[in-house]
Amino acid sequence: MNHLPPSSDRISVVILGATGMVGQRLIERLSRHAWFRISALCASEHSAGKPYGEAARWRLPTPLDPSIAQMRVQTCDPDVEGTIALSGLDSAVAGPIERSFAEAGHAVVSNAKNHRMDRDVPLLIPEVNPGHLHLITRQPFGRGCVVTNPNCSTVGVVMALKPLHDAFGVEAADITTLQAASGAGYPGVPSLDLIDNVIPFIDGEEEKLATEPKKILGTLTDQGIEAADMRLSAQCNRVPVIDGHIACVKVGLRRRATRQHVEEVLQNFRPEIADLHLPSAPDQPIIYLRDDSHPQPRLHRDLGHGMTVSVGRLQESDVLDFKFVVLSHNTIRGAAGAAILNAELLVRSGLRDVLWAGKNECRS
Amino acid sequence: MNHLPPSSDRISVVILGATGMVGQRLIERLSRHAWFRISALCASEHSAGKPYGEAARWRLPTPLDPSIAQMRVQTCDPDVEGTIALSGLDSAVAGPIERSFAEAGHAVVSNAKNHRMDRDVPLLIPEVNPGHLHLITRQPFGRGCVVTNPNCSTVGVVMALKPLHDAFGVEAADITTLQAASGAGYPGVPSLDLIDNVIPFIDGEEEKLATEPKKILGTLTDQGIEAADMRLSAQCNRVPVIDGHIACVKVGLRRRATRQHVEEVLQNFRPEIADLHLPSAPDQPIIYLRDDSHPQPRLHRDLGHGMTVSVGRLQESDVLDFKFVVLSHNTIRGAAGAAILNAELLVRSGLRDVLWAGKNECRS
Amino acid sequence: MNHLPPSSDRISVVILGATGMVGQRLIERLSRHAWFRISALCASEHSAGKPYGEAARWRLPTPLDPSIAQMRVQTCDPDVEGTIALSGLDSAVAGPIERSFAEAGHAVVSNAKNHRMDRDVPLLIPEVNPGHLHLITRQPFGRGCVVTNPNCSTVGVVMALKPLHDAFGVEAADITTLQAASGAGYPGVPSLDLIDNVIPFIDGEEEKLATEPKKILGTLTDQGIEAADMRLSAQCNRVPVIDGHIACVKVGLRRRATRQHVEEVLQNFRPEIADLHLPSAPDQPIIYLRDDSHPQPRLHRDLGHGMTVSVGRLQESDVLDFKFVVLSHNTIRGAAGAAILNAELLVRSGLRDVLWAGKNECRS
Amino acid sequence: MNHLPPSSDRISVVILGATGMVGQRLIERLSRHAWFRISALCASEHSAGKPYGEAARWRLPTPLDPSIAQMRVQTCDPDVEGTIALSGLDSAVAGPIERSFAEAGHAVVSNAKNHRMDRDVPLLIPEVNPGHLHLITRQPFGRGCVVTNPNCSTVGVVMALKPLHDAFGVEAADITTLQAASGAGYPGVPSLDLIDNVIPFIDGEEEKLATEPKKILGTLTDQGIEAADMRLSAQCNRVPVIDGHIACVKVGLRRRATRQHVEEVLQNFRPEIADLHLPSAPDQPIIYLRDDSHPQPRLHRDLGHGMTVSVGRLQESDVLDFKFVVLSHNTIRGAAGAAILNAELLVRSGLRDVLWAGKNECRS
Repeated sequence: MNHLPPSSDRISVVILGATGMVGQRLIERLSRHAWFRISALCASEHSAGKPYGEAARWRLPTPLDPSIAQMRVQTCDPDVEGTIALSGLDSAVAGPIERSFAEAGHAVVSNAKNHRMDRDVPLLIPEVNPGHLHLITRQPFGRGCVVTNPNCSTVGVVMALKPLHDAFGVEAADITTLQAASGAGYPGVPSLDLIDNVIPFIDGEEEKLATEPKKILGTLTDQGIEAADMRLSAQCNRVPVIDGHIACVKVGLRRRATRQHVEEVLQNFRPEIADLHLPSAPDQPIIYLRDDSHPQPRLHRDLGHGMTVSVGRLQESDVLDFKFVVLSHNTIRGAAGAAILNAELLVRSGLRDVLWAGKNECRS
Repeated sequence: MNHLPPSSDRISVVILGATGMVGQRLIERLSRHAWFRISALCASEHSAGKPYGEAARWRLPTPLDPSIAQMRVQTCDPDVEGTIALSGLDSAVAGPIERSFAEAGHAVVSNAKNHRMDRDVPLLIPEVNPGHLHLITRQPFGRGCVVTNPNCSTVGVVMALKPLHDAFGVEAADITTLQAASGAGYPGVPSLDLIDNVIPFIDGEEEKLATEPKKILGTLTDQGIEAADMRLSAQCNRVPVIDGHIACVKVGLRRRATRQHVEEVLQNFRPEIADLHLPSAPDQPIIYLRDDSHPQPRLHRDLGHGMTVSVGRLQESDVLDFKFVVLSHNTIRGAAGAAILNAELLVRSGLRDVLWAGKNECRS
Repeated sequence: MNHLPPSSDRISVVILGATGMVGQRLIERLSRHAWFRISALCASEHSAGKPYGEAARWRLPTPLDPSIAQMRVQTCDPDVEGTIALSGLDSAVAGPIERSFAEAGHAVVSNAKNHRMDRDVPLLIPEVNPGHLHLITRQPFGRGCVVTNPNCSTVGVVMALKPLHDAFGVEAADITTLQAASGAGYPGVPSLDLIDNVIPFIDGEEEKLATEPKKILGTLTDQGIEAADMRLSAQCNRVPVIDGHIACVKVGLRRRATRQHVEEVLQNFRPEIADLHLPSAPDQPIIYLRDDSHPQPRLHRDLGHGMTVSVGRLQESDVLDFKFVVLSHNTIRGAAGAAILNAELLVRSGLRDVLWAGKNECRS
Repeated sequence: MNHLPPSSDRISVVILGATGMVGQRLIERLSRHAWFRISALCASEHSAGKPYGEAARWRLPTPLDPSIAQMRVQTCDPDVEGTIALSGLDSAVAGPIERSFAEAGHAVVSNAKNHRMDRDVPLLIPEVNPGHLHLITRQPFGRGCVVTNPNCSTVGVVMALKPLHDAFGVEAADITTLQAASGAGYPGVPSLDLIDNVIPFIDGEEEKLATEPKKILGTLTDQGIEAADMRLSAQCNRVPVIDGHIACVKVGLRRRATRQHVEEVLQNFRPEIADLHLPSAPDQPIIYLRDDSHPQPRLHRDLGHGMTVSVGRLQESDVLDFKFVVLSHNTIRGAAGAAILNAELLVRSGLRDVLWAGKNECRS
């Protein structure tokens, strides 16, 4: 067992939407985090006041930490203790709650879609666009700020596009996803819809896959993020899998490349943040698997504690230039783990301290 | 109950590979066929000599016809009774057996891949390229001939491309499939590979999807079939579904079209063979479904007794011009039903009679 | 196609709870019924006023009849047209609505649990206890009446116990079920609970299996039904199956029997109602399957159009006397088909006419 | 990361049947074992000579240790290096191979059924019948010996029966299992048999469940094991679950007990071996879960690293006295983990040293 710093030395974190699927994953991954400790669990009125173990229907194989089970759930009130607010809130309610937490001085790290495309809000994947984090210094929230992670199906695709875009320029990508049930939360997709079946539709998902990557792969300018110049189109399917989204990607490149070169670029991807040694950053953000039948959700979703994106089946294509398959763990790399990694980058970058210093001045 | 013509008025049909999954579907669909009667069931040495009910592990919900259950399985010897041989043989053995049946004067209607790309063998979908059937008059088999149907994942895609190709010219298509377990036969895919999982690989399938459609949509010339000029690329996945292949298709067209126009063209598709009233031809070879979450394998695979192809989710795309979703029943429309419909066209076309007449002369 | 009597010659039937899973099955099975025609579709306020095709999320592979799709859904008001009311209502609301329909003179044939154990309400399986139908003459509903069918997991078990009870006397039965997802309705069980999983609990189900069979196998007396004298205990599990409940039954008999004798009794079961030729009664209410791996939900649930109960794997047991496996289609034999068969028996028995005649007098 | 003793201080272990499902689990659990190191990997002729990573189709989410992947697979020849032989061999070949290893002086710890019921072979669950291990001193294998673990469905049931038998005397048990696909190995059950389906039959399984528990719960005497006096009967089903066998158990007790008392006895079970601190022994061999819907395979199979047996839903029963549900991880607690725990007990008990000392004398 690794030894943690004493609780008092760790940064206090509020979980917003603590009883949902993403909230549960956040709790699972924070229960022994080296930098963070959970100071408050917030959820709807319905859950507030109950011990967490009673309020939540725990759906993860990792047993719920007994000390968390006893914590009393609170409403999403910005007065709760905690300097970082990790939000797994549903988008139906996330917008105003997250804003109020930011205004109250919290660093809000959100998994919800509500603020992702806001002009001054970073849509962040630490391995891909860490520099976008600077946007938070332009936010109107005083000491508070809002940072978001992309949609669960976007993360894997963008992680694989990043080294290709750097090396060859991505001109176009056609994406077809096979997405896991957990992406829809709990209760989510009825079993009558997924046993012996596929649903070729996920509300809003194709739009997110066609827009979010352009912002993430875009350029930070004085006017905000200038979207990357690429054409994207997606078809999204729900399949009978618990966790792990597959994306079949066809990609057109601006510069010629051999298959061998593309594979090397994928394999050798080393992100800028590698030297920061963030606790949740996997040793390898991308792993290239050579077996023809890989990646598979059940076998590879947990690589790198769920934070490694697996890529395989790279082939030349007659329509666009190349095609390959990407797998990422949707509730870890695509949600809870993504948010925690964002929070880690926020802390390590020192930008949060800048906010606290600078904004204190502004306020005084 | 509909009344069948007396057995003696129906054409005798041999089933090759009678114990396999396609063989079972052939038997299911021929047990009350208006034109055909099963005269012999052929399979491997291992099964030969046993009553069919004992030799085959019947895997269909429709109960096995007791009179079929009692028929004794024979080896695949061209001397068996029967003028048409419907083959559900595995490609590992289909090549020489089918050839020997053709040489012995059988009209071989095959589901195996072995002869599909042969120069003088029609790769036939009656609603799409009925004229290609004339190729059989160029075959070197005397009174016999070989007709093939395409791979199970090809059929649905080509059926949807046909009206688009006629109306607008298909220039390119990017295809991602989500294929059912029955496509791999029995025992086929282990359940350990498909529970809570997807396999992003099906051996040989992507190649078939990139080549077969060009032959089917090609033009009959004196030199054989001139392949259609289009670029194709596919990624094929196995998903936990019993029957019904989904294909997510992105298509580039040669002539501009509105979404509305494309939908009309799909909906109003009326094949040349509509007036022939072939017993297995569905009223609608293509049905366009408007519900955003359709087509779904479990709900729509059996439309038109499994012979109707369902299309839905037509949208404009930023990469190629349009995208849509196609569903077809892989062991019916994509295999057994396809072969039977081919046999029906062969009979109705009169070409078989031509062979018999003409070749009789040649032989005499 | 079989020809139906003209609509005006058929008895008008109201569907209560028309949009739910049982409601959909009722509609599917009544759309071409020889005796009945659907005169009204009733559901909650939320659905009322909409065309049925819009109000219901149709979940069956059989396409919805277009004429039904256009019928406007009504609220559950006893003034609607119809002499028989077939109820697939949820038990949360079924009690008072069904009562009000009975009081208004409808023959209510219900699938809900609310009135099943009422003293003067028959809990009816036509092949098992047709005589219990006489209870309706003791009901306080004037021309109206209430007839119920048992819980979906009870039907199969009781059907198999009936011939054994008649022949040998059932003293005890230990039952373990493996129940399909459709038993929980739609949306019902979340897919996150059933992919790669089993839930060893179904609320209220074990109690129903321990009580309902005793009433059904009981004796009609002047004081009502005297429950059969047997000990019952059940454990109920939800498994990842769409339709078809398996019950593993161990049974203790009052009279000694050989395995061979028990099998014969199961196979040769010929119910009293066989001569009535009710339209929904299967040729064989019980089929005994000899293959060691049968019955299986996917292969055998649709036997007898879903109305045949499959039994297999009969063996002697060291604890109770015998053990065997029962399969029945839970939304057909266990719900919609059961209710329709009850309605058919009600009509054929003439008891409904008695009510109308007799009660008219009483009322005048 | 915990630090292991240097390799030279650890006991060398041969894996027999290394490429199969149980072999893979053995490797997974031994790759960082405190006492053992893998010295040889043995499998069939087909695999011999290849690096393990090539010979085996690795099916576990835990990545294969690279140093193991490079080890060359050997045939099952007793001359290989290793003092303990852990066998995951298929029963079709296990008998003579295991015997030859024992005769060559290996301590054979086997998961196969072949020698389980042999008179002088312990059928061992360390928490249940550690004393039975003394049987090995009566074996005719010189320094070698054979120890077996029970069938995967037996382990969980016996673990739950043990405290009840000690406290109240088990007179009878009726068992119905819902067993995972991995129990059949790889490729094992075809997905066409398990998607939307249940198979109510597993060859040989019901017999094992009716006999093995009596030996395990029996008494060691001079004549061998005197079987426990209890009546057992089982019905076994295969369900669409990857790992984790459910058993629904009804139990008749010799002494009266309240439900509360039975629950306490289950919860407070503390095995004799608790003080030995065997590396693979879970903190709690039995955990009693109070949530009505527990235990569930996906949520609880991994408790105690897969070695804890979960029990829940304890209720009084009208037929036998009590009923409850047991869950155990079939390829860990029911196979690989069971064998390793047996090997650990063998080492800790000192009996292996006795064999080596004593038999050396005999031999000299």
